Amino acid sequence: MAKEIPYKIYLDEKDIPSAWYNMRADMKNKPAPLLNPGTGQPMTAQELSGVFCEELVKQELDETSRYIDIPQDIRDFYKMYRPSPLVRAYCLEKKLDTPAKIYYKFEGNNTSGSHKLNSAIAQAYYAKKQGLKGVTTETGAGQWGTALSMACAYFDLDCKVYMVKVSYEQKPFRREVMRTYGAQVTPSPSDTTEVGKKILAAHPGTTGSLGCAISEAVEVAVTNEGYRYVLGSVLNQVLLHQSVIGLEAKTAFDKIGVKPDVIIGCAGGGSNLGGLIAPFMGEKLRGEADYRIIAVEPASCPSFTRGTYAYDFCDTGMICPLAKMYTLGSDFIPAPNHAGGLRFHGMSSTLSQLYHDGYMEATTAVQTDVFEAAEYFARVEGILPAPESSHAIKVAIDEAKKCKETGEEKTILFGLTGTGYFDLVAYEKYNNGEMDDYIPTDAELAESIAKLPKVN
Amino acid sequence: MAKEIPYKIYLDEKDIPSAWYNMRADMKNKPAPLLNPGTGQPMTAQELSGVFCEELVKQELDETSRYIDIPQDIRDFYKMYRPSPLVRAYCLEKKLDTPAKIYYKFEGNNTSGSHKLNSAIAQAYYAKKQGLKGVTTETGAGQWGTALSMACAYFDLDCKVYMVKVSYEQKPFRREVMRTYGAQVTPSPSDTTEVGKKILAAHPGTTGSLGCAISEAVEVAVTNEGYRYVLGSVLNQVLLHQSVIGLEAKTAFDKIGVKPDVIIGCAGGGSNLGGLIAPFMGEKLRGEADYRIIAVEPASCPSFTRGTYAYDFCDTGMICPLAKMYTLGSDFIPAPNHAGGLRFHGMSSTLSQLYHDGYMEATTAVQTDVFEAAEYFARVEGILPAPESSHAIKVAIDEAKKCKETGEEKTILFGLTGTGYFDLVAYEKYNNGEMDDYIPTDAELAESIAKLPKVN
Repeated sequence: MAKEIPYKIYLDEKDIPSAWYNMRADMKNKPAPLLNPGTGQPMTAQELSGVFCEELVKQELDETSRYIDIPQDIRDFYKMYRPSPLVRAYCLEKKLDTPAKIYYKFEGNNTSGSHKLNSAIAQAYYAKKQGLKGVTTETGAGQWGTALSMACAYFDLDCKVYMVKVSYEQKPFRREVMRTYGAQVTPSPSDTTEVGKKILAAHPGTTGSLGCAISEAVEVAVTNEGYRYVLGSVLNQVLLHQSVIGLEAKTAFDKIGVKPDVIIGCAGGGSNLGGLIAPFMGEKLRGEADYRIIAVEPASCPSFTRGTYAYDFCDTGMICPLAKMYTLGSDFIPAPNHAGGLRFHGMSSTLSQLYHDGYMEATTAVQTDVFEAAEYFARVEGILPAPESSHAIKVAIDEAKKCKETGEEKTILFGLTGTGYFDLVAYEKYNNGEMDDYIPTDAELAESIAKLPKVN
Repeated sequence: MAKEIPYKIYLDEKDIPSAWYNMRADMKNKPAPLLNPGTGQPMTAQELSGVFCEELVKQELDETSRYIDIPQDIRDFYKMYRPSPLVRAYCLEKKLDTPAKIYYKFEGNNTSGSHKLNSAIAQAYYAKKQGLKGVTTETGAGQWGTALSMACAYFDLDCKVYMVKVSYEQKPFRREVMRTYGAQVTPSPSDTTEVGKKILAAHPGTTGSLGCAISEAVEVAVTNEGYRYVLGSVLNQVLLHQSVIGLEAKTAFDKIGVKPDVIIGCAGGGSNLGGLIAPFMGEKLRGEADYRIIAVEPASCPSFTRGTYAYDFCDTGMICPLAKMYTLGSDFIPAPNHAGGLRFHGMSSTLSQLYHDGYMEATTAVQTDVFEAAEYFARVEGILPAPESSHAIKVAIDEAKKCKETGEEKTILFGLTGTGYFDLVAYEKYNNGEMDDYIPTDAELAESIAKLPKVN
């Protein structure tokens, strides 16, 4: 064991980034703009500001500022749980008997249990600054909803959360955490919105999806005075806020004089992956360094690996702007499995463009393999990982095993986005051997992809 | 805000203590010895080693070594989650508008969700070193059981956990965490042991207690070849291991040049409190410094404040050695409330002696006040606290409010022993206004205290 590198590389408070890094500034091919579904024209700032907070609209559309300053109030909040540790997985390496050096950036040491708080506090801050009464949102696994509830409690904002029904049922305790932080939580689809009623009529008995919940939350935001909608993934602004993950990881690596060879992150809407890879991708885009970057998605919801790169709705209700992205079609509702926050039909436009341009790879993992890796990891590294994060663990372990075969001493970094404390129903299923590996058929995917909007 | 002190005072890996501190070495009046219930004579090392691991028996009986070296394997495990942060509660101070400076030592940043892992890994290590097959234990809130499961997974030991029935029912997910780490979990009292059957016959429909579960776990350990019993609190050895909490806190305070005035910890069996106060109490015992030390217990299980200082059984089944302690009687079964790990009828002998000798104070808090403090804390400091820890939060907030009245700038340290992720049933009750404040009557306490063993 290389004793000179500690198990946990902690940074000082002053090392919390003072600015977010905006990958788009370094992209030659910028991500395609959001389109107005009515006109087919790029959404203007004015159009977007009916749905989103003004300052966040600016960030959404800003393709040129490489760095955007983090307001002091947000940095003060970050200090409560950041810098997050970069961990050297000595015990995992030893157990795998691999020459690979494995590191993970652990974002689960806060009550939301994930990285989501990084963007939630920023979005709540700008809503407060704009003098709003409150915000609405959707949540899948519940991590984003919890994070936003915490952020709204901190700034004394009202918080209405539409929670994907399957998660609401699998994770009853998530609801109570959000309530403890003062939020109002509704299972989605619900009959509290017009779009919810329509979805329920079209898909009776549906277990819901992020796409449905987004539609409901947006409707409530635009029909209530003093409210705006906030989103925990997919958007450019979210990837921007999440860049603190990668920036800290990079600072920590620089501190110990190490450079990762492979960077692995799970991918749902892309917020964690986009944040983790940000500064590394920046170097790659500028031709300063090279990294192998791997997105891992669930085999049950494979937007990168089996989707189409096209304009699509971000929501099932088709009331949101169109985004160009790798998508399975906004009508696609994945099986009620346990990938939680990775059940979104599309993918961040920024990441989609980068993937399209060959700057990163993508792969999938089936559910039982993911939980096998999760349990293996928990027993050797102590931390009970979230199912989402465990997609990255699975592929990191595979890469480390390859190194054992080849004898290569690669340095692997993966994002451990969160903890699995609220995923015990899923762990129970796995422990009881009751988990299955649903993979959509080509015909199923073709059906939902065929319904892409006409703009393409 | 005093910007020079960061929100989180992190130590380096090398600052993890290399030796545990043994308070008994500095006590003029040593804690009374464990007695053999049959003979009324002090338990010998030989007698104890039928139940406990040999090395742990040595530590249990060692009243003279001020420091005991921490084996390297245990320190390596500590590196996965220690040093734990000492946090300056700036947001809480601001919200309370108090001149007090509030700090907490946060032990919840590991999957067991509490400080229990500090002793679990030590006990598992010594069991492995002795060549045992496995260990048995009891768990109340489930934190100790989870911690021990994690430690046993790490050292590849079998782990049998008897879980207090009320917790087993309130916290179904705790069981799954333990299973994920490979443990076998049985609700207690159960019909898998002779003593369990006896308790069930005497108290049909009982929701269980730590005392019952201890009896069952001990029976299984002594009747199975290659097994020993391990305990997560009360014992001298446990307080010894937990001294890492206080030692790190002291090092962190020394680093920033601060000395706490008041030290507050919740008290069930005493493991967290004994660990948190250890080095500070050492200075007090040696006359080098003075600190006000406050133990907070639930009003539903008030051993310090309403118990008797006498020899008693540690378990309900009366098969364990007798310990001299503040006790409510081993027959006392507290109401099925949500104090979780604070439901033990007795208290560490070491802490009992220190309390008896006037080195510390004790107070109680009722349940709804505790949850009110918990929710208040969660909303301003972000962390969802365990109900146990929230007893300390409640009194820390009270002390800070007193400072506001008097204008005193006291420095308050409290132990934030763990997180409340598995306590959402309790939070839900509180959120719904369905929680009551059970306090035992004098008659109830007199009845169980009247049954103390004859040795007194």
